[in-house]
Amino acid sequence: MDPTAFRRHGHELVDRIADYFEQVEKYPVLSRNRPGDVAAALPADAPEDGEPFEAIMADFERVIVPGLTHWNHPGFFAYFAITGSAPGVLADLLSAALNQQAMLWRTSPAATELEGVTLAWLRRLVGLPDSFEGVIYDTASIATLHALVAAREAAIDGVRSKGLGGRSDVPPVRVYCSDQAHSSVDKAVIAIGLGHDSLRKIPSDDEFRMRADLLRAAVAEDRAAGRLPIAVVATVGTTSTTSVDPVAEIAGICAAERTWLHVDAAYAGVAAMLPSHAPVLRGAERAESVVVNPHKWLFTPFDLSAFYCRRMDVVRAAFSLTPEYLRTTDAEAARNLMDTGVQLGRRFRALKLWFVLRSFGARAIRAHLAEHIRLAQALAGWIDAHPDFERMAPVPLSVVCFRWKPTSSLATDAALDAANEKLVDLVNQTGEVFLSHTRLRGRIAIRIAIGHLRTTEQHVRRAWELLQQHAAAIV
Amino acid sequence: MDPTAFRRHGHELVDRIADYFEQVEKYPVLSRNRPGDVAAALPADAPEDGEPFEAIMADFERVIVPGLTHWNHPGFFAYFAITGSAPGVLADLLSAALNQQAMLWRTSPAATELEGVTLAWLRRLVGLPDSFEGVIYDTASIATLHALVAAREAAIDGVRSKGLGGRSDVPPVRVYCSDQAHSSVDKAVIAIGLGHDSLRKIPSDDEFRMRADLLRAAVAEDRAAGRLPIAVVATVGTTSTTSVDPVAEIAGICAAERTWLHVDAAYAGVAAMLPSHAPVLRGAERAESVVVNPHKWLFTPFDLSAFYCRRMDVVRAAFSLTPEYLRTTDAEAARNLMDTGVQLGRRFRALKLWFVLRSFGARAIRAHLAEHIRLAQALAGWIDAHPDFERMAPVPLSVVCFRWKPTSSLATDAALDAANEKLVDLVNQTGEVFLSHTRLRGRIAIRIAIGHLRTTEQHVRRAWELLQQHAAAIV
Repeated sequence: MDPTAFRRHGHELVDRIADYFEQVEKYPVLSRNRPGDVAAALPADAPEDGEPFEAIMADFERVIVPGLTHWNHPGFFAYFAITGSAPGVLADLLSAALNQQAMLWRTSPAATELEGVTLAWLRRLVGLPDSFEGVIYDTASIATLHALVAAREAAIDGVRSKGLGGRSDVPPVRVYCSDQAHSSVDKAVIAIGLGHDSLRKIPSDDEFRMRADLLRAAVAEDRAAGRLPIAVVATVGTTSTTSVDPVAEIAGICAAERTWLHVDAAYAGVAAMLPSHAPVLRGAERAESVVVNPHKWLFTPFDLSAFYCRRMDVVRAAFSLTPEYLRTTDAEAARNLMDTGVQLGRRFRALKLWFVLRSFGARAIRAHLAEHIRLAQALAGWIDAHPDFERMAPVPLSVVCFRWKPTSSLATDAALDAANEKLVDLVNQTGEVFLSHTRLRGRIAIRIAIGHLRTTEQHVRRAWELLQQHAAAIV
Repeated sequence: MDPTAFRRHGHELVDRIADYFEQVEKYPVLSRNRPGDVAAALPADAPEDGEPFEAIMADFERVIVPGLTHWNHPGFFAYFAITGSAPGVLADLLSAALNQQAMLWRTSPAATELEGVTLAWLRRLVGLPDSFEGVIYDTASIATLHALVAAREAAIDGVRSKGLGGRSDVPPVRVYCSDQAHSSVDKAVIAIGLGHDSLRKIPSDDEFRMRADLLRAAVAEDRAAGRLPIAVVATVGTTSTTSVDPVAEIAGICAAERTWLHVDAAYAGVAAMLPSHAPVLRGAERAESVVVNPHKWLFTPFDLSAFYCRRMDVVRAAFSLTPEYLRTTDAEAARNLMDTGVQLGRRFRALKLWFVLRSFGARAIRAHLAEHIRLAQALAGWIDAHPDFERMAPVPLSVVCFRWKPTSSLATDAALDAANEKLVDLVNQTGEVFLSHTRLRGRIAIRIAIGHLRTTEQHVRRAWELLQQHAAAIV
């Protein structure tokens, strides 16, 4: 495809995408495909001869579009709603076109340095101090893995060279998180060889926040039993209920124990941009590392996870390794992104964060976040006022957990679980909204996560109407 | 930015990118920036108020463009030349706009299934059997990390739960690769807790291929010393010289030893599409896992790494973990990509591979690969015919390693190293080409890697002219 054809097809595609953004509400949020539909509609082999762009786009419309779950739909309330905003999408187009690979400073000075600039912008917006250096990873899962590798590096003498196995000088280790922490913590301890059993999940309180007193007791118990605490992962915005662990108190424990504190603020970290919500990151300034995901609630197309670390030297000590074919003389003056992690290759992800922050400006971003929080509070109010619905958790941010619990019946919890799962399915089948569920204290809870840029009060009201209508039909 | 503004700015951006593709040769390949130039040109804080798209694009031109190293330039011969081809760029625009997050089948049936379809297409094109299941990761570094986690899972009882440390039942382990293997193997053994010392680098032969006899001896020696061999990483297309390890022979050793064989074919795997080069993957069908990077030599914008595994059940056994908030009833019928790795979130990367494979067709891709190989052979011939240049390695694929070694002087090897480093710098300073270096048997070698879609014989000739001119000036 020569530049002329690129120009023509690019214009067509921009129009197609603009149409999509304008008309996204005409699609069902959750794909109605059945497993195998997409695969069955495509040939078993790549074509021998090139095909015209029109033919590929025709198959895109025929095969791919019905298989999309529309994360762009304002009725997307499942998991965490995310937004690939228009400036971010355009920046990602530019990033794909430039095809920068920022492993070394010299292979992309712009990508390397813009990463530093945009992460400093974001850091100051959320109120983390200058002592944190940032690096962009693809996902928070990878950020947390790096945090725990750094914690391991800091705690265990010679672990980079000697590893963990076959050593009599390495006691069993412990990593702590709450029983509400994200599964990425589990995956990380497995991946880096600590073992799943090394992860001790501290019970949470009535509001799903890690109990610092139980953390303190667990650490003491583990030390007495000869185990070495190496890290605590506190969560700011847990996945189920967006509860916020008492980071300041946990930081105090970690400081006393000389244990690495990693704060998983992937979803809620950006809320600290709001004066009203700055406290969510209180204490995080004492953490060794913090992860915040602009691709979650900062209108940046997936993927872009911001990892901040006060001891990036430890990350570098764990990973820095320069083979001859990557040795440069710029090294003294410039940082090379490859030194801060597993991945050698790095996309130009900072570009989309730069476009988003500049195009919106901090004020508008704050306004959107505040509006999402307001909508969640409003929904919580409607639920609280309804006799047949029950709220299941506090609403500190933009996610509401609740269940249908009709006063007219004396259903068992098991029956309520089944009814609420059915209710979610029925509501999702309308195609107007997409909700997900979680389990809280053993019981199914419906989750409504408000975070999409296009979501307005009308969409939240519609979700609430659909829930009431379909609940009535279940009875 | 509303859809109307997106449409307008999208069209402007498409035109800007088309201009860039047309005029890329007007830029110096390697950025002439000095460390700090980009950062110094930007404010310390994000703007409080949103800025017009034009202002951001003006800064893009003023600040970012001079800081780009142009991986799109046909004179890019450093590291491995890569191409973000036009169909791939357009697909990546679409991917950013759709903002799919394919952690679960239901969160993007299209992304989940198209990943299976396109990876099967690529697998058949390179001649790997149906027994390999594929998954897309961001980079080969992450693919190799997963391969070694799977090898660890297969070899060490209960490692997922119990980890590696504090166990008397886990002997010291060994991972093997050649002394030419990529640094991602080093990073992976460090990251997953085996320790860098667990990695034993097997010497390579005169043509930089792992010596299978020495591998066999090393394994026997390690077993006798009570060490447990858990994996061998064979390389198909090493980074320095693109040498190809004797995979078939290594596979025989691994089968006898019941040791996981991972084949790093990140660069050269696609060459197996050519009947003439199908042997590069001979024996890989017996490997447990193979990684091939479409973002390297398959014209797909960075990042997209294809990981193939004959025992994906082991990868799943290591990583599968479904918290309640991600539990779905589709699970029986559909695969969920989150089960095959560390990362929960997955971009819709398959879309760009689909566009590339369909837009080019297999025939045209083979023709491009064959032409790059032909150009490398031609360059090798010119070097061989020149009295003052010396080839440093065979040229099995599209990379040529050589050095300037004037017959007129009796320079020491150390002086030649310095002269060749200077020669690379001088040639790079012209801005017409960008070359990198490596070290072979202790000596500096200049590397010319041919792999960019726009690179023609004229560009290779120009690089060769520049080398001769500047070498003459060094004397």
